[in-house]
Amino acid sequence: MTAVASKIGPGTAGEAAEIATYFDRLFPLLRSLTGAGVRQSLDILGELVLLERIEIPSGTKVFDWTVPQEWVVREAYLEGPDGRRVVDMRDNNLHLLNYSTGFRGEVSREELDGHLHSRADMPDVIPYVTSYYKPRWGFCLPHRVREALSAGTYRVMIDADHIDGAMSLGEAVLKGETAEEVLIASDICHPSLGNDELSGPLALAFLYRRIAAWPRRKLTYRFVLHPETIGSIAYLSLRGNHLAAHCVAGFVMSNTGVAAPFRYKRSRRGNSLADRAAESVLGARWPQAHAVSDYAPVGSDERQYCSPGFNLPVGVLSRTPDHYPEYHTSLDDRDFVSFDALSETVDAYEAICRKIDNSVRYRSLSPHCEPQLGPRGLYHTIGRAGPPEAMTQALLWVLNLSDGDHDLEAIAQRSGIGFDLIAEAATAAHKAGLLSESGAMRVPAR
Amino acid sequence: MTAVASKIGPGTAGEAAEIATYFDRLFPLLRSLTGAGVRQSLDILGELVLLERIEIPSGTKVFDWTVPQEWVVREAYLEGPDGRRVVDMRDNNLHLLNYSTGFRGEVSREELDGHLHSRADMPDVIPYVTSYYKPRWGFCLPHRVREALSAGTYRVMIDADHIDGAMSLGEAVLKGETAEEVLIASDICHPSLGNDELSGPLALAFLYRRIAAWPRRKLTYRFVLHPETIGSIAYLSLRGNHLAAHCVAGFVMSNTGVAAPFRYKRSRRGNSLADRAAESVLGARWPQAHAVSDYAPVGSDERQYCSPGFNLPVGVLSRTPDHYPEYHTSLDDRDFVSFDALSETVDAYEAICRKIDNSVRYRSLSPHCEPQLGPRGLYHTIGRAGPPEAMTQALLWVLNLSDGDHDLEAIAQRSGIGFDLIAEAATAAHKAGLLSESGAMRVPAR
Amino acid sequence: MTAVASKIGPGTAGEAAEIATYFDRLFPLLRSLTGAGVRQSLDILGELVLLERIEIPSGTKVFDWTVPQEWVVREAYLEGPDGRRVVDMRDNNLHLLNYSTGFRGEVSREELDGHLHSRADMPDVIPYVTSYYKPRWGFCLPHRVREALSAGTYRVMIDADHIDGAMSLGEAVLKGETAEEVLIASDICHPSLGNDELSGPLALAFLYRRIAAWPRRKLTYRFVLHPETIGSIAYLSLRGNHLAAHCVAGFVMSNTGVAAPFRYKRSRRGNSLADRAAESVLGARWPQAHAVSDYAPVGSDERQYCSPGFNLPVGVLSRTPDHYPEYHTSLDDRDFVSFDALSETVDAYEAICRKIDNSVRYRSLSPHCEPQLGPRGLYHTIGRAGPPEAMTQALLWVLNLSDGDHDLEAIAQRSGIGFDLIAEAATAAHKAGLLSESGAMRVPAR
Repeated sequence: MTAVASKIGPGTAGEAAEIATYFDRLFPLLRSLTGAGVRQSLDILGELVLLERIEIPSGTKVFDWTVPQEWVVREAYLEGPDGRRVVDMRDNNLHLLNYSTGFRGEVSREELDGHLHSRADMPDVIPYVTSYYKPRWGFCLPHRVREALSAGTYRVMIDADHIDGAMSLGEAVLKGETAEEVLIASDICHPSLGNDELSGPLALAFLYRRIAAWPRRKLTYRFVLHPETIGSIAYLSLRGNHLAAHCVAGFVMSNTGVAAPFRYKRSRRGNSLADRAAESVLGARWPQAHAVSDYAPVGSDERQYCSPGFNLPVGVLSRTPDHYPEYHTSLDDRDFVSFDALSETVDAYEAICRKIDNSVRYRSLSPHCEPQLGPRGLYHTIGRAGPPEAMTQALLWVLNLSDGDHDLEAIAQRSGIGFDLIAEAATAAHKAGLLSESGAMRVPAR
Repeated sequence: MTAVASKIGPGTAGEAAEIATYFDRLFPLLRSLTGAGVRQSLDILGELVLLERIEIPSGTKVFDWTVPQEWVVREAYLEGPDGRRVVDMRDNNLHLLNYSTGFRGEVSREELDGHLHSRADMPDVIPYVTSYYKPRWGFCLPHRVREALSAGTYRVMIDADHIDGAMSLGEAVLKGETAEEVLIASDICHPSLGNDELSGPLALAFLYRRIAAWPRRKLTYRFVLHPETIGSIAYLSLRGNHLAAHCVAGFVMSNTGVAAPFRYKRSRRGNSLADRAAESVLGARWPQAHAVSDYAPVGSDERQYCSPGFNLPVGVLSRTPDHYPEYHTSLDDRDFVSFDALSETVDAYEAICRKIDNSVRYRSLSPHCEPQLGPRGLYHTIGRAGPPEAMTQALLWVLNLSDGDHDLEAIAQRSGIGFDLIAEAATAAHKAGLLSESGAMRVPAR
Repeated sequence: MTAVASKIGPGTAGEAAEIATYFDRLFPLLRSLTGAGVRQSLDILGELVLLERIEIPSGTKVFDWTVPQEWVVREAYLEGPDGRRVVDMRDNNLHLLNYSTGFRGEVSREELDGHLHSRADMPDVIPYVTSYYKPRWGFCLPHRVREALSAGTYRVMIDADHIDGAMSLGEAVLKGETAEEVLIASDICHPSLGNDELSGPLALAFLYRRIAAWPRRKLTYRFVLHPETIGSIAYLSLRGNHLAAHCVAGFVMSNTGVAAPFRYKRSRRGNSLADRAAESVLGARWPQAHAVSDYAPVGSDERQYCSPGFNLPVGVLSRTPDHYPEYHTSLDDRDFVSFDALSETVDAYEAICRKIDNSVRYRSLSPHCEPQLGPRGLYHTIGRAGPPEAMTQALLWVLNLSDGDHDLEAIAQRSGIGFDLIAEAATAAHKAGLLSESGAMRVPAR
């Protein structure tokens, strides 16, 4: 964990450059739902994040799903009738249909065509295509190249197997003073694509490093890296009940690497602490550069975290829409990503987490009438004309609304007093023994 | 039930003409709270609706009320000093004060006047007047005729009795796949009046025929014909607890027979499935030709169905306000009614019922994370760029919100996806074993 | 209680004049948290209000607080180097730091200065300063006088002690037909200050006299006079649980004596019966001359009554803001107060109490279907065209919404019918045995 010790300030050029070096190491790896590429990626990110590896054996039933076999790929290329390689995974691992079955043999141009994937509307890009749930072999290539393929016999070499092994997840927990948790989740299953999805695990790792460096954390922060969909489902099969009991806010990090306005998609609950904190931070710091939308069950892992049986307070903060021209094509590369923007994304996440960390739901230990402030050094002792000073007002609001229903963000909103002053007052009242925070943030079942 | 077999398409001229033939048979009958006219009416409507007769004995206590005696009327006329008949029930049964006591004898012009009812503001109409709860005899006649009555002795012949018998209700149930029910109620106590109220039982009967012809019904449909107020009270004394447990939506049908914009009056709950479905259908199909108003405890049988002890989700869909110039006068006759409009009313009710039938509240059988769609044939199996297709999106919304709180109408509203696609997705998910609908629509006690 | 018998009509010049005579007797007394001045004040107000004296011994623990010692003051003055008296409590009891410790001795001009209190920004006023929670001695004087004090030796005479005794509260209860209560609280701890606070206890006393003269009271009215903060805290230690169970509305009376627009500050609940009634009365009678603000935990005793452990439905109706130029200075004297305005304040409070008294939350004794109105003389017995008359409509609304959730004020709002007609209908229905009010107003725990 020396990386934590050498922490570079938020939003500095130094952080962006450091992100870039990790990007460059991670980009070329062949990731998929399972396999060596995922494990190598977790190893590299493990330099930044104290990750525990979770290996879930192939064939494990997780809710309605089954953990798939491990994908082992050694090489993959296609040779034309003239013996020249049409495509080779070594040039770009998008060329191989992701999770493709192995195949060696000769096929006619016509038969080959059923195994090729290209985009007629974007003839120069390699599309990213997967076939996780139906065994197929195939190649992805620019439409222009495909169109130019002559008749004849093609030699296919896909040296790949699906073997009984395991699906790999990485998890890290930064313990706080309470058992209430914030969940940060991102995906680790796409091969050489920049914004979707390398920007997610990178933002997660650098956010981890920042939060690890906080002098104190009221809440516990749980970070998880998993393949999309099946990964979050498997993770919920392990941690779903725990999260239902402890998670007070959470975010799916994806598409966070471009210099575009922030996009916040609310949790299914619509008014969870995650939602209020994100909207409040974005409204204050990026008032002209963010948009907010309601939950919809399309997108990424929020579909699992917000499934009705869990209904976790998990939103999504990203910087591109779910779909954009470069999405799932070779155009989503290093040039498409801005490391400064990625670092700014980490700023936003950190600010939101700070707000959440300060937004505990206290319960007054002196709910019947006001407690005495003077003897606790919280009030002037001589009666004066004029309204109570701002700090005293904040204190009175906090004491009055700390009934277990209002978190500090809600108290700030109802009182019209800035969040920071409310949080300061709450800290003072808590230190003075007037507020309890134990178990106070428990999320009611819904 | 051959009528069902010979079903004529909704809104066709054929249906309107068929309604007219029933109207002409029903119009002349002398209906009241009780008696032969009601039974004859139920017999005729029984040709369309498989009605079970419920006979509640006179004197039965129903909540705060008592079932009245049967009214038996043989003839009723008034002879002037010159021996000529001033009014005769045979000309128009509105001439007899409804539920009048019997009386034979001679009275002076002056004494007679206390027993006459007319409308000075509408001197040419016969008003419809009742005296259910105070024994009186009387005649109703045009004010102009009353004014012209000379002095002298008048001979009154009201050959009528009130006898211990029963009050007659008709009930029919179209069973569906679940025990959850939609209630359709209308009144059968007014004599020769067209819009108020013959249009109600006629719309009910033809709606019954349409729903009976549906290839399947998820819900059970309960139709009831009763006299107004005392009839719905007696019916609730029999079925109130059952309805409180099973009724998910209901409507009082009245004043449905004129070519005027639809008027929907919400249930007391204000946001029940009945309300949301009616407003959604009217908004989509008659956007410029409908109005919606909040519940008020004036009007018809909704006063009973929405009394605080039951508070059923019962609204009113009609086409005239509670009061209008022709209301409760001889002007509310065949000419006032439009059979095409009546058939269109049946269209509206059928569309609303269809929407309700499709608006079941499912519960996901796979609430923890998304279920797999691919193996169930509900999802493409190859990863592609671009947003999921519309059907997949609908499916994801349905699965995400099927938590027992949201019915399909609510899911359509929250997702912004059209109801039909949501319903189709739900059907597919249900067929695939992903959703349960058993007992899912139970109305929470309130 | 002869005062009640000699009741003078609301808002009459006679009442204002009578208030003035009490003001003149109460103004000169030296009040503080405890002591003889408080008891003398309670004696005088006891001529108007049948007060029970509650004496709470010094040292008693009340929640987080301790009842302070009694303050006994015999004389207090300051002599200058020339032997002339600089200030003397006999001229104005504001001159003595309130709750000052005793001190006799000679001090230098410099040492003296640490014990002087003045307002540089208002050099001609004597400020009102207290030191309840830290033992200090001191004098208050105009800044101009302080500035002119020459060097030299000053003789201090503060013949005062703090002794173990008791803190005095006064309480009076006007019993009504039910155990549900309205609380009226005011303070009795400020010495010679007119608006803040003598206007409060005076308004309370004259409101008591008015309500005592009502021919009937549905609710019970509880009046309490206590020193600010520690007094309401001590009172809540005695009556808090009782009030939590019975109090349906309450008001802190303070700053009620100037001819300025009314200011209503809502209870913490924000929509309590106190709030709705006050806003409705002020809106109807003083539409251009009132303002409403949300609860905030600054101000007076509402801070205790609305502390989260009690959260009583207690608002504040006053006529000045919490702070104004004359506040806590010798400018807040007889000239600052308007006795006509004070009498108008009593008008407002009485109207609000009347509304609350009439706003009982009934429960229908006939919740299943409508009860019969005719046999109870509440409905015409002959069927007629046209909408039901206004009184019948009001009756139907009251019966429909008397489900234990709606008080009459809420029924008036939902129905759009004027409160008076709703209340009249409810009274008729209650008299007819259709509504129960027993225990109906119980405030739900929150």
